[in-house]
Amino acid sequence: MYSFQNDYSEGAHPNILRALETINYHQNNSYGLDEHSDNARELIQEALEDYSVDIHFIAGGTLTNLTFISHILRPYEAVLSADTGHINTHETGAIEATGHKVFSIPADDGKLTPDLIRPVLKLHENEHWVEPRLVYISNPTEVGTVYTKEELEALYTFCKRHGLYLYMDGARLSMAMAVEETHLTFPDLPDLCDAFYIGGTKVGAMFGEALVIVKEEFKDHFRFNMKQHGAILAKGWMMGVQFEELFKDGLYLELGRKGVAMAQVLKDVFEKTGIPLLAPAPSNQVFPVFPDALAEAVTERFLTTFQCKPDPEHTCLRFCTSWATSEEAVRDFVSEFEDLASKFNR
Amino acid sequence: MYSFQNDYSEGAHPNILRALETINYHQNNSYGLDEHSDNARELIQEALEDYSVDIHFIAGGTLTNLTFISHILRPYEAVLSADTGHINTHETGAIEATGHKVFSIPADDGKLTPDLIRPVLKLHENEHWVEPRLVYISNPTEVGTVYTKEELEALYTFCKRHGLYLYMDGARLSMAMAVEETHLTFPDLPDLCDAFYIGGTKVGAMFGEALVIVKEEFKDHFRFNMKQHGAILAKGWMMGVQFEELFKDGLYLELGRKGVAMAQVLKDVFEKTGIPLLAPAPSNQVFPVFPDALAEAVTERFLTTFQCKPDPEHTCLRFCTSWATSEEAVRDFVSEFEDLASKFNR
Amino acid sequence: MYSFQNDYSEGAHPNILRALETINYHQNNSYGLDEHSDNARELIQEALEDYSVDIHFIAGGTLTNLTFISHILRPYEAVLSADTGHINTHETGAIEATGHKVFSIPADDGKLTPDLIRPVLKLHENEHWVEPRLVYISNPTEVGTVYTKEELEALYTFCKRHGLYLYMDGARLSMAMAVEETHLTFPDLPDLCDAFYIGGTKVGAMFGEALVIVKEEFKDHFRFNMKQHGAILAKGWMMGVQFEELFKDGLYLELGRKGVAMAQVLKDVFEKTGIPLLAPAPSNQVFPVFPDALAEAVTERFLTTFQCKPDPEHTCLRFCTSWATSEEAVRDFVSEFEDLASKFNR
Amino acid sequence: MYSFQNDYSEGAHPNILRALETINYHQNNSYGLDEHSDNARELIQEALEDYSVDIHFIAGGTLTNLTFISHILRPYEAVLSADTGHINTHETGAIEATGHKVFSIPADDGKLTPDLIRPVLKLHENEHWVEPRLVYISNPTEVGTVYTKEELEALYTFCKRHGLYLYMDGARLSMAMAVEETHLTFPDLPDLCDAFYIGGTKVGAMFGEALVIVKEEFKDHFRFNMKQHGAILAKGWMMGVQFEELFKDGLYLELGRKGVAMAQVLKDVFEKTGIPLLAPAPSNQVFPVFPDALAEAVTERFLTTFQCKPDPEHTCLRFCTSWATSEEAVRDFVSEFEDLASKFNR
Repeated sequence: MYSFQNDYSEGAHPNILRALETINYHQNNSYGLDEHSDNARELIQEALEDYSVDIHFIAGGTLTNLTFISHILRPYEAVLSADTGHINTHETGAIEATGHKVFSIPADDGKLTPDLIRPVLKLHENEHWVEPRLVYISNPTEVGTVYTKEELEALYTFCKRHGLYLYMDGARLSMAMAVEETHLTFPDLPDLCDAFYIGGTKVGAMFGEALVIVKEEFKDHFRFNMKQHGAILAKGWMMGVQFEELFKDGLYLELGRKGVAMAQVLKDVFEKTGIPLLAPAPSNQVFPVFPDALAEAVTERFLTTFQCKPDPEHTCLRFCTSWATSEEAVRDFVSEFEDLASKFNR
Repeated sequence: MYSFQNDYSEGAHPNILRALETINYHQNNSYGLDEHSDNARELIQEALEDYSVDIHFIAGGTLTNLTFISHILRPYEAVLSADTGHINTHETGAIEATGHKVFSIPADDGKLTPDLIRPVLKLHENEHWVEPRLVYISNPTEVGTVYTKEELEALYTFCKRHGLYLYMDGARLSMAMAVEETHLTFPDLPDLCDAFYIGGTKVGAMFGEALVIVKEEFKDHFRFNMKQHGAILAKGWMMGVQFEELFKDGLYLELGRKGVAMAQVLKDVFEKTGIPLLAPAPSNQVFPVFPDALAEAVTERFLTTFQCKPDPEHTCLRFCTSWATSEEAVRDFVSEFEDLASKFNR
Repeated sequence: MYSFQNDYSEGAHPNILRALETINYHQNNSYGLDEHSDNARELIQEALEDYSVDIHFIAGGTLTNLTFISHILRPYEAVLSADTGHINTHETGAIEATGHKVFSIPADDGKLTPDLIRPVLKLHENEHWVEPRLVYISNPTEVGTVYTKEELEALYTFCKRHGLYLYMDGARLSMAMAVEETHLTFPDLPDLCDAFYIGGTKVGAMFGEALVIVKEEFKDHFRFNMKQHGAILAKGWMMGVQFEELFKDGLYLELGRKGVAMAQVLKDVFEKTGIPLLAPAPSNQVFPVFPDALAEAVTERFLTTFQCKPDPEHTCLRFCTSWATSEEAVRDFVSEFEDLASKFNR
Repeated sequence: MYSFQNDYSEGAHPNILRALETINYHQNNSYGLDEHSDNARELIQEALEDYSVDIHFIAGGTLTNLTFISHILRPYEAVLSADTGHINTHETGAIEATGHKVFSIPADDGKLTPDLIRPVLKLHENEHWVEPRLVYISNPTEVGTVYTKEELEALYTFCKRHGLYLYMDGARLSMAMAVEETHLTFPDLPDLCDAFYIGGTKVGAMFGEALVIVKEEFKDHFRFNMKQHGAILAKGWMMGVQFEELFKDGLYLELGRKGVAMAQVLKDVFEKTGIPLLAPAPSNQVFPVFPDALAEAVTERFLTTFQCKPDPEHTCLRFCTSWATSEEAVRDFVSEFEDLASKFNR
């Protein structure tokens, strides 16, 4: 039975494995200063249509977040995050461990807006409070929603007006960009935030994320901070090679479209069977809210993840597809689930 | 015009000044290892009827909180605090700067209860989350409420059952203990939490708080952590002498009763003139909620502190009395305020 | 021309690539909780003949060092390291960034001994000093020397007697164990220190080190600290698979023997041509000290690393072989170098 | 018997006690934003003949050092200190606890020079090393030596040329300035370093140091960092009043001259009796090196501090005088010591 528990349970896209094998005995410069990493950086810059950005490859999202955020903040500066934000919940206090408060802002759909941030700024009036400085968003969010280009424009404009930085956690960036309604393209990104990362782990790589630093003043000495946090890999070209492959011929975006397409089939069957969703699910994560009995039956038969209990009689589960989810796996699920649901609907 | 802005705008109780002068040329051991500090420790132990506790004098509440909390937590452990808790708002991220997340729990009256904490524990299920370990409370709270002995018993029982530590920030402890309904006495304290501090700065001292460590395992090597955070004063006996005076003949509790008595006069005039309060105000801080126009008039005439705007038409101000507030100052205020209010009530 | 600059310029052992390809589409549990990681852990335990140790896979040496060391020390505790120790020089203050002092002890051959540590302990007498708690050693050291089993026994006995922990950085452990005179075998290791790591990156893996925790009290909650430092990889089985291969049929030790054998050929040619070494070079790193003119000629013709200038007329270079260095590459070097040296010896 | 153990065993100068008493019931603004602190700042600026510097009062030297240093460094930047430097030895790793490496430079007389620093800069070549950024000196040093104006000029010129900051720990600044050969005056100081602190605790205050920030870019948001480290005192005027008194009519310098004069009497008797010194002792600390038997006899009869054992047969003790040391105390010591020494010289 195929598992919908997450989008990081399979290996790497075959192009990546092939490339790693091809160059295996070639001697490379170490620490990410090799030609594959350089080439991957260029391919990404080309996709972004911006050759001024700095790009660093780091082995994992938490490591990327903590290394970047600790680099740009002064000791008394804080991060604003949606309460569901990954750094606020699922990174074991990694940001606080570097000394900075994460100020949590309740947001039902996991998205931050100027209206949500404005009162927080007002509250922080003097040196007895931390100084809000960085707005952290994830796109897609942890509840499966995505930001439109317009929403990002409004948010970034607001940030710049208030001396805030904007950083986007793109662990599943490809999955957000595959959602057509967002109208988000690669060349938009450097205009919409001060830095972001292009997630590889959840989009076809073995491991590795590409941090893109747009804002000039954040570039200086960044490799010192990487090394200090153990974020420079000796054999850095291992990530360079992977991003070379992901950014050849649009593979990165293609893998996202694949993952999203599969998830939308799941969404359709939930809608068809009258199961409401926790939040709109345009991307590769779907959060159906089942009556408890059905949730139990689903959990027994399928591999999925518990999300929350929105009320005492209902259970929300997460269904997640990946770049490697096959149409067959989805078809099998749909047919089995329809059977199951029909028994409960009687 | 007397200022009600806070309870730390006046100097020290005259007994303290006199004592400091008396011993001025005596040579003392440094770093808090002198006979005055030892004597003060004994007097406090006597009041607590517990000679097993460790007592350290530290020059300020934030320094006490951050030194103690960073001492007892492992890197991935977090603090639970009411959203209004001093460490969560007014200490510029001091706890996070030592590496620990402060998890903020909304609490209208500033008080934590088992019912508020239970769901938070459930949420933190594995190594992707910080591990909740310390419950931080302030007594009185930042909105002027106090814990009864019963509430503290219930909270501590809950904490022990769930492997949580309980720490009480007693910046104004004397002011909480002066509230008769709490039924809280000194000998109760070591049975009601793992550690607490007895605030001096806001109760008649020039500066200095007495941290009382009850739990055995927290005592070890604490002076190392103090020194590392700059919390060992070279002339430590300066604090020893102050606490000697505060704990002679019940002066510490007397000063609290004085402060609270004065605040209750203020509370009475607000109630008499129909001004509602933000929260019950049994202690030395009163938070009247004025119609905006009256708030403005009050602010023009009296020295007080802006607290918040509970709604667009009202403004809440803080009135704070101290051990040094005179009956005359309060009487003057009452009479002037009644005049003012009567103009607005017409 | 083959590069002797370091031992991390080539890819992975072919068995590893093959294994990763074989399981590519299998769905695995995430975060290192998969069957390959479990199996690798068992294979390592088997080699160590100790099934009680905990084993964690982490993507890099600096990340392993900082995660482990920050886990076991209390805030005021310090690490003792040889002045050449990797954490003291080449990790950009990673340990200090977690809050702990690294006390540097001058050691010509890069090795710590009880005699070197004893006076340091005496110096640190009270709470004004950090508390020395962890002895960090690397084996092989950064100057190419290795510890014998006897030396490790003496050091660990000393540590235990003085309440110190002993941790061994085994980035090139296989290269130390390949040196016969050390008499060091896998089953010895859990008896000789409280924790150590078995380096993969420099011994045939793409990336990944296996941290082995021996001391019981260090095991608790370690995954929390890993996650906090970004040291849990989503696709953790990528490292599990690699260590499965390295610990099948003694491959790990075989690769070390290979690397060391190649380096010894280099050493021989230096000795034969009358070039002294900076330190004894029994392992895979050789540090010849050339007259400046020869050093310059060597640097022009071969790829190697500058180490230091022991005096104004001489230059020390590092020659490093790896598991992948071929006999042919070494033979070519020897022949070319002999030519070169003969010109200078005339 | 008068104790020469340290210069912080007596209380405060009587002017200070009198001033605190006079204003005791006056209500002041809190957190150092009061008129006494403002006035003290102006008096200090006047002495420095520089009205552009920022001045902050902090309760203790370690707290001042850690708050300032953590404010100005980026995460990967390090401090250079003489091996005897206070932050490197006697502050329990306080700087490392804020995340920064202290690089220790051996210096026999406790003083740093360009020649000592130059090779350290060369060593730190890239992102694998911390980035040396701040030079920390204490004046007087921990072994009683002082910097001349010329030495400070040379050092600061060197620092500026190499992008280093220079910070002077002036815990006993008055005692250094009392040494005539240094030719150091208050107006020189802002031209000789980027920041320094004027120690109060060891020069007649109850507690408190005045941090003087010269470099423009260090001034911004400094109070945020102070609050975060618990370095803003609620009743901040307590320090303001003290520095008002110390900087009225040259009292601060007068107290230094007094302390130094008394120490020089001690130095003379040691020289007269043929006791060598550990280092030149122009200030208020003298470090005589006694044959062990005499050291023992001295220790039995007088209160002094063990410093070190320069060789197995000798013991070095520290004799320290203060602003409050009386001529009589010194006279008594001299006469008793001469008796004692004569018995050993026979």
